[in-house]
Amino acid sequence: MTTRGRFITLEGGEGAGKSTQARFIRDWLVERGREVVLTREPGGSPLAEAIRSLVLGDWAEGVTPPTEVMLMFAARAAHWHTTIEPALAAGRDVVCDRFVDSSYAYQGAGKGVDEAALQTLERLAVGGHKPDLTLLFDIEPELGLQRTRERGEENRFEQETLEFMQRVRESFMARARAEPARFAVIDASRDADAVSASVAQTLVARLAPVSEAAA
Amino acid sequence: MTTRGRFITLEGGEGAGKSTQARFIRDWLVERGREVVLTREPGGSPLAEAIRSLVLGDWAEGVTPPTEVMLMFAARAAHWHTTIEPALAAGRDVVCDRFVDSSYAYQGAGKGVDEAALQTLERLAVGGHKPDLTLLFDIEPELGLQRTRERGEENRFEQETLEFMQRVRESFMARARAEPARFAVIDASRDADAVSASVAQTLVARLAPVSEAAA
Repeated sequence: MTTRGRFITLEGGEGAGKSTQARFIRDWLVERGREVVLTREPGGSPLAEAIRSLVLGDWAEGVTPPTEVMLMFAARAAHWHTTIEPALAAGRDVVCDRFVDSSYAYQGAGKGVDEAALQTLERLAVGGHKPDLTLLFDIEPELGLQRTRERGEENRFEQETLEFMQRVRESFMARARAEPARFAVIDASRDADAVSASVAQTLVARLAPVSEAAA
Repeated sequence: MTTRGRFITLEGGEGAGKSTQARFIRDWLVERGREVVLTREPGGSPLAEAIRSLVLGDWAEGVTPPTEVMLMFAARAAHWHTTIEPALAAGRDVVCDRFVDSSYAYQGAGKGVDEAALQTLERLAVGGHKPDLTLLFDIEPELGLQRTRERGEENRFEQETLEFMQRVRESFMARARAEPARFAVIDASRDADAVSASVAQTLVARLAPVSEAAA
């Protein structure tokens, strides 16, 4: 019988270096003999990627928070069903850049979608499943936005105000406090190598060994 | 002050002739001096039409009921916000081919999405708004499917089984019984002219006069 893989998510505001650290985690796990699926949200399956291109697009009509949150969770349901759940069931680890917590932070705390609606959408999309480990890359919004501007990679979300990003940050931190067994908070204001060193320490400390699965 | 327009929806299974009757209603209202927006779901705004093309598409990964229902309501939220609500507020009548009732019938009764989730999605998409009049075009699934096949216009939904279509029909009828002030049930097994005659009778009987708005 195959031991189920570990589901590791990366969360945080813009410019926190999540994508870089997601690749670092993938490589770190592969070096230890694991099969790893590296993925990201919104997206992660052909249908979910098509939804991503709609939700990140610039629409003259605008994208209201209700439309946005339903598109995010529709993509997540496809991603879960098509990519994440089959990989975990086959014993692969899944490393995912953004997941459910981002919707509570961005569409919930950021844009006012109420918690009850978010809980219903979460249940529809992923049932009761939770990540085994969520790394929260915490960074001051001013610094994070400065980094995204220097990369020249602003999208619709990266054009939000500092006050919005502060609400997002506080929501992430509140969720980390509420679920300490799932979350690890990483100071993402440091350079990438220092952050990776903290990530590696966290993986050693928090991931259950799976040598029986790799055998 | 502009009197708010009337919101008229058409519901029913495949092959019930809704599109033909929607154009008949539009023409009937225009002949009586009304400004009318004729629209349909899923779709009805640029973003909602883009979502429509995703949800009606053939995806190798499949489209699970949770993904489907969230896409339907995401499109509906955009449609409501961009097209329907502004038209009603400007005093125009809106004639819409399919609306919320179709999601309860197809994704709910047909595909097992639970009622509580549907109610949350409805609240997110359209708040507490309801159509002023919903015409339910009732037809036996066998006859309706035969008509769609003769038209050669089958999509993913029109390939469902007769048993599925029977559940959809029963759900529509149960909703009509529960809200008799909003619904009118039309026998759609007859030829288009006979159905249109019933539709016209219903509009005369059920639509409040709006001569003050047309003045």
